Amino acid sequence: MSIIAVLGFGTVGSGVAEVLATNGASIARRVHDPIELKYILDLRPQPESPWADRFVTDFSVIERDAEVSIVVETIGGTGAALEFTRRALAAGKHVVTSNKELVAEHGGALLALAKEHGVRYLFEASVGGGIPIIHPLCQCLCANEISRITGILNGTTNYILTRMIRGGLSFESALREAQEKGYAERDPSADVDGKDACRKICILSDICFGRQIPPDQVPTVGIRGVTAQDVALAAACGCQVKLLGRAFRREDGRVSAFVEPHFVPNGDPLAGVEDVFNGIAVTGNVIGDVMFYGLGAGKLPTASAVVADVMDIARGMDVRFNLCWEPAGAELLAPVEEVADVWCIRAEGDPETLEKALPGARRIDGPWAAVRTEPMTRPALEEALSRCAVLGAYRVLNA
Amino acid sequence: MSIIAVLGFGTVGSGVAEVLATNGASIARRVHDPIELKYILDLRPQPESPWADRFVTDFSVIERDAEVSIVVETIGGTGAALEFTRRALAAGKHVVTSNKELVAEHGGALLALAKEHGVRYLFEASVGGGIPIIHPLCQCLCANEISRITGILNGTTNYILTRMIRGGLSFESALREAQEKGYAERDPSADVDGKDACRKICILSDICFGRQIPPDQVPTVGIRGVTAQDVALAAACGCQVKLLGRAFRREDGRVSAFVEPHFVPNGDPLAGVEDVFNGIAVTGNVIGDVMFYGLGAGKLPTASAVVADVMDIARGMDVRFNLCWEPAGAELLAPVEEVADVWCIRAEGDPETLEKALPGARRIDGPWAAVRTEPMTRPALEEALSRCAVLGAYRVLNA
Repeated sequence: MSIIAVLGFGTVGSGVAEVLATNGASIARRVHDPIELKYILDLRPQPESPWADRFVTDFSVIERDAEVSIVVETIGGTGAALEFTRRALAAGKHVVTSNKELVAEHGGALLALAKEHGVRYLFEASVGGGIPIIHPLCQCLCANEISRITGILNGTTNYILTRMIRGGLSFESALREAQEKGYAERDPSADVDGKDACRKICILSDICFGRQIPPDQVPTVGIRGVTAQDVALAAACGCQVKLLGRAFRREDGRVSAFVEPHFVPNGDPLAGVEDVFNGIAVTGNVIGDVMFYGLGAGKLPTASAVVADVMDIARGMDVRFNLCWEPAGAELLAPVEEVADVWCIRAEGDPETLEKALPGARRIDGPWAAVRTEPMTRPALEEALSRCAVLGAYRVLNA
Repeated sequence: MSIIAVLGFGTVGSGVAEVLATNGASIARRVHDPIELKYILDLRPQPESPWADRFVTDFSVIERDAEVSIVVETIGGTGAALEFTRRALAAGKHVVTSNKELVAEHGGALLALAKEHGVRYLFEASVGGGIPIIHPLCQCLCANEISRITGILNGTTNYILTRMIRGGLSFESALREAQEKGYAERDPSADVDGKDACRKICILSDICFGRQIPPDQVPTVGIRGVTAQDVALAAACGCQVKLLGRAFRREDGRVSAFVEPHFVPNGDPLAGVEDVFNGIAVTGNVIGDVMFYGLGAGKLPTASAVVADVMDIARGMDVRFNLCWEPAGAELLAPVEEVADVWCIRAEGDPETLEKALPGARRIDGPWAAVRTEPMTRPALEEALSRCAVLGAYRVLNA
């Protein structure tokens, strides 16, 4: 029997309890052993909960109970979550989490602490909700050198963009709709300003490239600036506007990582990822391109990934599988200013001015002054356009 | 050090040697130990090969060499491959394979034999080439009850259909083009008649539903009958023609499994799977829908999956992870005749006759007599249409 404790009984934490209850019989059969939820740590009492008798408010009860072998951290943030994770690992307990902020900020150190104590720190649910991505990267694609990860990593912004594209809504109306449907928070900034996507591309990059990339060093642009005209321009170019997190290894060995809205050509599988779905494309040197698709958030999908990690540990998977990555090195990150892409540019005025400013640019048909450039960096683009009134500038993925 | 032998040095077998050579350093680092290729079993000598000194023609050399802990079977078929797999497992060696025919026909028995001898039988590469699908199903989605698998499982037929859709080619011309490009064999029947897709949906179904489904009991229709008119009708319905393998659990607990060309609505992520790519959609009771996408065949992608399985074993992953499924039970399979779907029907004559024959059918605009039905089974459809000259009838996925 594996005895677990859940820290934080919000959306994901209660989802974990629900999945263990709903699929308990098949889970026990697959693990060859039942998994028992002994404690729920939460400051808010929930007397109506079917698990009311398991609530505790003092972490040290869990920490001192030798029966508890796995701690599920679904508190979120980097306050109590960090402290309890450290104490649980130090007490020789495995920790499973969905907390992307904590993993993005402190993953390397927590993995090292887990290794030191011979236990595991698993966080499949921290990226892509329930979509299997971290295990496939570490295990199924382990014969590859991964060169590139490109992801639609945030369901809220993808929903807003989809409604702008398909429904003709403005950003503000689409955001309001997302809030009404519960897809966006009342304070939507972690989503719409790209912070959530940034944390996730950092985690994927850490895994693939072996060094912790601090989220605050990853240039991040959200979707507040995307207008209906940009959406129309994308359509005229045979593209969809998508907020992408990208990380890739450059020829000189350095890594570029950034988050910003892109034009994704319709032939690309990421262009078909709509609504609250996420899609993560990975390129390896022997497998070529693969993509993982599914619900990137939500109570049960995220809990599905958390429980799978718990089952991995309960089945006694070898500790040698423990991931680790090294601390950040300032020399690893190549500035996004060096990344050359094809751009689609919309400006005020006449297209001829734009074409003249950008050698090789081709005019885009439509009621705009708009061109498609040759591959170039943003600083080169900005310099060339210093005399133009630019209204929108988007990188075109894989153009 | 893990010492391996490769049986059969064709496309996949030589790809395995190539991946081990190309990515040897990172593989050794990840496994904490190098993997050495000691023997290659092949009847054709290859004196020009960089591995010429490792060729043997007698399996018993490998069988008797206690140093060899992992045997990679890339012979294909159910003749020598079956015999050598049995002997290797009985000799206490782990076996990794890409042989879908062998796994589909004898997977249950070989898994049981592996268990008996305390070794593993792994076959990630048998479905979807390099795409991670079997590990994610068994591990990442293990907290779910899987209810449904729907896959574009054969790259050759998907390439032919894509060329018919995008290039306006006939089936014959598209097949010829696929043969010229090396995507189709000279005798293309295993692909175009759906046998390959059938084996793969059987393997996925065995894993998800726990019982061996014999491929010869799975109704299989290939793509020889798909015409340019069918492709045009699909477009008029907002769909793409795709050859799908489907398996799902019915409410009464029985499983339906079959392979046939479908109309897939453009909003569905499977509609965007083009050319030689594969896509496999899976529905679980807590995760909802996820999809896995990538190259479903080819030397290096397939070898990528084989080598990942070898690395899993070399890293000492616990034998308790061994999958198993029970022998077939005739009572498990529900006849495909009981599966009701919406259909798109094209017929000779006038649409009114069709609409009258099928209560609730809606006319489809275009230069055909064509309707879209309510959900119904094929026998009901055939009975209603017994007096009509039907030219094409396609199930519409998830309609």
